[in-house]
Amino acid sequence: MTAADKLARRTEAVDAETAEHVTVEHGGDLAAVQTAFPAAPRPWIDLSTGINPWAYPIGRIPRSAWRRLPGAEDEQAVRRAAARYYGVGGASDVVLAPGSQALIQWLPRLRARSRVAIVGPTYSEHARSWAAGGHDVQTVGAEAGVLRDSDVVVVARPNNPDGALMPLLRLTELADRLQRRGGWLVVDEAFADAAGAESVAATLPQASLVCLRSFGKFFGLAGGRLGVALARPPLSHALREALGPWPVSGPMLAVAGRAFADSTWIRRTRLRLDQAAARLDRLAAGAGLRLVGGTSLFRLYQCAHAQRLFEQLAAHGIYARRFAAEPDWLRLGLPGDAASERRLRRALAAFAAEEPH
Amino acid sequence: MTAADKLARRTEAVDAETAEHVTVEHGGDLAAVQTAFPAAPRPWIDLSTGINPWAYPIGRIPRSAWRRLPGAEDEQAVRRAAARYYGVGGASDVVLAPGSQALIQWLPRLRARSRVAIVGPTYSEHARSWAAGGHDVQTVGAEAGVLRDSDVVVVARPNNPDGALMPLLRLTELADRLQRRGGWLVVDEAFADAAGAESVAATLPQASLVCLRSFGKFFGLAGGRLGVALARPPLSHALREALGPWPVSGPMLAVAGRAFADSTWIRRTRLRLDQAAARLDRLAAGAGLRLVGGTSLFRLYQCAHAQRLFEQLAAHGIYARRFAAEPDWLRLGLPGDAASERRLRRALAAFAAEEPH
Repeated sequence: MTAADKLARRTEAVDAETAEHVTVEHGGDLAAVQTAFPAAPRPWIDLSTGINPWAYPIGRIPRSAWRRLPGAEDEQAVRRAAARYYGVGGASDVVLAPGSQALIQWLPRLRARSRVAIVGPTYSEHARSWAAGGHDVQTVGAEAGVLRDSDVVVVARPNNPDGALMPLLRLTELADRLQRRGGWLVVDEAFADAAGAESVAATLPQASLVCLRSFGKFFGLAGGRLGVALARPPLSHALREALGPWPVSGPMLAVAGRAFADSTWIRRTRLRLDQAAARLDRLAAGAGLRLVGGTSLFRLYQCAHAQRLFEQLAAHGIYARRFAAEPDWLRLGLPGDAASERRLRRALAAFAAEEPH
Repeated sequence: MTAADKLARRTEAVDAETAEHVTVEHGGDLAAVQTAFPAAPRPWIDLSTGINPWAYPIGRIPRSAWRRLPGAEDEQAVRRAAARYYGVGGASDVVLAPGSQALIQWLPRLRARSRVAIVGPTYSEHARSWAAGGHDVQTVGAEAGVLRDSDVVVVARPNNPDGALMPLLRLTELADRLQRRGGWLVVDEAFADAAGAESVAATLPQASLVCLRSFGKFFGLAGGRLGVALARPPLSHALREALGPWPVSGPMLAVAGRAFADSTWIRRTRLRLDQAAARLDRLAAGAGLRLVGGTSLFRLYQCAHAQRLFEQLAAHGIYARRFAAEPDWLRLGLPGDAASERRLRRALAAFAAEEPH
C-alpha cells in the first residue's frame, strides 16, 4: 500500500467517524496525514486553518483571572470593548460565548421548528446544528428563490472557503423580509476582521439580524475560545440566558479586553495579513494554481490536480485543506515564518516540476 | 441612610436584576457590598464562594494551546485522565464542558417535557435551567414521595450549602427506578472532590445516571472554566454533540491534564482543606456560631443574628454568603492566608463582643 493509499484509507475512516464535525473548517485530522507521511520533515506546518499565525501577545494574565469566576464587571468591560470594535450600539447588543461554535450550537434551540436556508457551500457546522435542532434545512445558492420563503437564512460573509461577499443591499432585503415574518438572518462574520472590524450589525438595524464573530481567527488565539454574537434584545438576551453565567474563561476575557482596544496592533496586523496573502498568491500562481477567492486569513485555489498537490505538500510536511465535494479546490492558510514559506515554496516547485500544465 | 440600609437597598436591586442567576452559589454582588461599606479595609476578602484558595499551579502553558484549536487528541488525553481521577470506565464516559454550568444549561434541552424533582434547597441554577427548558419543576425534600413519580431527579451530593449526603442505597434505588422509566438521575458532585475524587458514577452502573463535576472548585481554578459530566453512552454522546467541538479552551486543557494526574498535590490539598475547615469551625464556634454542615471547601453556620454578622464581616472587608430563604444561615469559604484568617478572627471577635448570646 502506498502512502497515498494509506492516507486515503485513514482519511475515509476519520471522515466517517467525525463526519458531523470535521468538515469545511476543521481541516480533518492532521494526525492521520502525519501517519500516512512518516518521512515528511518535522515539525509539520498546518496551513489547514484560517487562523492568523501572528497571534495577539497574551501578556501577563492576573492569577485571579484563573482562580475566581469572572465577575459581571469583567464581562461587561469586554462587551463594551467588543461593541466599540465591531461598531455596534453597546454592551447589550453583545453576547460572549466560548467560541462562535457555542453560538452555532445554541441558536437552533431558541426557535420552534423552522424552514432554514443555508447559503452554501459554506462552513458545514451551520447545517449540521440546525438539522440536529430538528429544523428543515436546505443548503442553497445565494440567489435561490427559497430564501424568500425561509424562516431563517444563514449567510457567511465573507464566505468560507471562497470569500464571497453577499451585497449589503441583498442582506438588507433579506433582513427586512425575515423581520416581517419573525425570522432570523444569521450572518457568520468569522472571517470578516481581516478586511475591517465593523460588523454588518453596525449598518443594519433589523432585530432579525444576528452576526457571529470569531475572536480567535483574526487575533490568532483560537485555543482561548471566544466567540461573539451581535444582536439586539430580545435575541441577545435569549442567547445570554441560554449560555448561562460565566461562559468565557477569565484568562480569555483578560486578553480580549486588551486586544479589542489595541487599534495599533489591529491596523498593523491587517496590513501584515494583506501582504502575506499577496505573497501566498504569487507563490501559488507560480505553481499554476488559480485563485478562486478567500480572505487575507486563507486563500482558495483551483487546480486540476489538487489531490496530487495535497500529497506533494504532505510529503513536505505541509497540511492543506481539501474539500470532498470540490476535489479540485485546495485552501491554504498563511505560512507564519520565513522557514514555513521556504518549505511551501519548495513543495510548490516540486509539484510544478512533476506536473506540467 | 445607614450603611446597612444602603446595603439592603442595593442588595434588593441586585437580587431583582439578577434573580435568575445570583442565588445559592454565586454569592451575590461583591461590588454592591463594597459600595455600601466604603470604609472597610482593602483588599476585600471574598469568602462567599466554595473555591479552594490554594489553586493548582498553572505552570507553563505552551503558546500553541492559546493559538490553535484544541486537537481531538488533547481532549482525549484529558478525558482519559479525568476518567482515572473520577474512577469511571474510560474516556467515552467523560464529557468536558466550559464549566459545569454549561452542562446544567444543556441537560434540560436534551429531553421532551418531563416532570423534574430537585432535591433542595440546593444550587438554584438547576431549577432555573429545567424551568427555562419548559419542564415541570418542583423542589422537594430528600424523602418526598414525588421523587417516585418524576422523570428526572436532581440531587447535589454533597449538597450545597448544607453538605448533606444522600445515602448511596437511596441513590441506587432512585437510579434503578429512573432507569426503568427512561428517566435521568442527575447527581451534582460539584463539591465532592474535597472528600475523595471518586464519583458515584464509579459505583452505580445505571445508564440513567449523569454526574456533574466541577474542576474549578477543588483545583482552585474556577476562572479557567472546566466542568465534567460522567455518563454512559448514549447520554454522554448526546451531551458531547450538544456542546459541539472545542468546548474547553486549550490553556485549561493543558492545566487540567496535569492536575487530574497529580496525586501528590491532590492528597496534600485534601489534607490542607480539612485542616483549614477545622480551624474555621473553631473560630466560628468561638463566636457562638453553630455548624449546620458543609464540605471542606465551605462551612454553613447558623446564627440568630446572621444579618448583623454579615454586616460586621462586611465592615471588616469580608464578604460572606447569606441566603434569602434562610435568614439565620451564613456560609463561609476558607480564608486563604494568615492575614485573612486574622482579619476574620477580629471580625468574629467584634461580632461576639457586640452581640451577647
